[in-house]
Amino acid sequence: MLALYHFGPVANSLTPLLCLLEKDLPFENRRLNSRLWEHHTPEFQQLSPDGMVPILLHKGRVIRESTVINEYVDSVFPDPPLRPADPWLRAEMRVLTKYVDEYFCPALTVVGAHGATPFASKIDKAEMARILARMPNEEVRRKWQTVSNTGYSEAELADARRKLGNCLRRLEDQLAGVSGDWLLGKDYSLADIKWYSMAPALPRVLPDLCTAEGAPRTLRWLDAMAARPAVQALDTYRTPA
Amino acid sequence: MLALYHFGPVANSLTPLLCLLEKDLPFENRRLNSRLWEHHTPEFQQLSPDGMVPILLHKGRVIRESTVINEYVDSVFPDPPLRPADPWLRAEMRVLTKYVDEYFCPALTVVGAHGATPFASKIDKAEMARILARMPNEEVRRKWQTVSNTGYSEAELADARRKLGNCLRRLEDQLAGVSGDWLLGKDYSLADIKWYSMAPALPRVLPDLCTAEGAPRTLRWLDAMAARPAVQALDTYRTPA
Repeated sequence: MLALYHFGPVANSLTPLLCLLEKDLPFENRRLNSRLWEHHTPEFQQLSPDGMVPILLHKGRVIRESTVINEYVDSVFPDPPLRPADPWLRAEMRVLTKYVDEYFCPALTVVGAHGATPFASKIDKAEMARILARMPNEEVRRKWQTVSNTGYSEAELADARRKLGNCLRRLEDQLAGVSGDWLLGKDYSLADIKWYSMAPALPRVLPDLCTAEGAPRTLRWLDAMAARPAVQALDTYRTPA
Repeated sequence: MLALYHFGPVANSLTPLLCLLEKDLPFENRRLNSRLWEHHTPEFQQLSPDGMVPILLHKGRVIRESTVINEYVDSVFPDPPLRPADPWLRAEMRVLTKYVDEYFCPALTVVGAHGATPFASKIDKAEMARILARMPNEEVRRKWQTVSNTGYSEAELADARRKLGNCLRRLEDQLAGVSGDWLLGKDYSLADIKWYSMAPALPRVLPDLCTAEGAPRTLRWLDAMAARPAVQALDTYRTPA
């Protein structure tokens, strides 16, 4: 009934995976191996013409974009609800998920993609040209062109780290402004799920800022997330099937 | 009951303005003059700490981010509905509004902000430093630093225009894939409103691509939008109060 195509419990793929696990919904696990470029095959592109992952299949239709998938899942399978009923709180939830999509994710992508340079730069140039030619999305293709060449410049990496510092401050401020364990306060929501798709990278990428002194609320929230059964169940999806 | 702070019927400010007009909702019109930096006063920052415009006031609470505001308005004032009831179509609507926020708007912002260089570069340097220091959002401050100096480079402008070409193709493809006058087919929705906040710039910015031969559906859709009474009513909000 439900089938999720994903890259495992990391970044945008984690977003719908964790949502399905929180709701205890059965789904077909279609783990793709990004390093084998399984998302750029003609078969997969029939489902996702842009080659974007994750996608959810439900009733023969494709739902795309992780943030949008989760709103869809919560509206079709509302138990337990992962969006606040109060319209203002729901708007705040969307401001938070939007920030991850527009600011946190692009910054973390630079750092993450740069980490793939040792892998991608070893690929034979003619083979890489063929791989690039199969990438339907122009921005993704340009990213991999950079990654398979020299990687990002020091200036680009520094700018990404600067932005990640802003993300950490935003997370810390958000948690300081609410009473309760979660980003919106008492109610665990899609905002926690979305931030958790990126935030576990912060202690590693910003070791000087993401500390017990500098970001105590962030570390406490990361621990509270890690203790959730659904988060622990993510491990099952770590290795390609 | 409702109050909208906006910069007039253009870009992100157009988004909630058009939504309120489509629903014929009375609201207090709080037009800010961006060239007088009215959004960087301490008074306004009490409502919008980041200095972001537009914001909507409702029941003493602030709703921010134009796309989020419109989902809020449609859920609190559902008549007439501007989101499809079908969850899959609603997801498609969100994919479309998201694309504008993440791809179309940033590209158009480069071209638009560059157009402000003649104005901003004439401002006395010490005065500009004071204006910049009052901007709470780091990315906005960096943008205006660039704009008040040399403006964007030719390479940055060319990259923005390349992306705008992709936006035009996306719009044309979307309209080709549906039957009906609007982006989702028969039902006019928040997706049309969001795209209309940016798309009227396309014929001017891409005069060689956005033509009757190259983008016939886009031009027809722009005409259909322009004929809507709510779009015509936008004119009333063009000049600062």
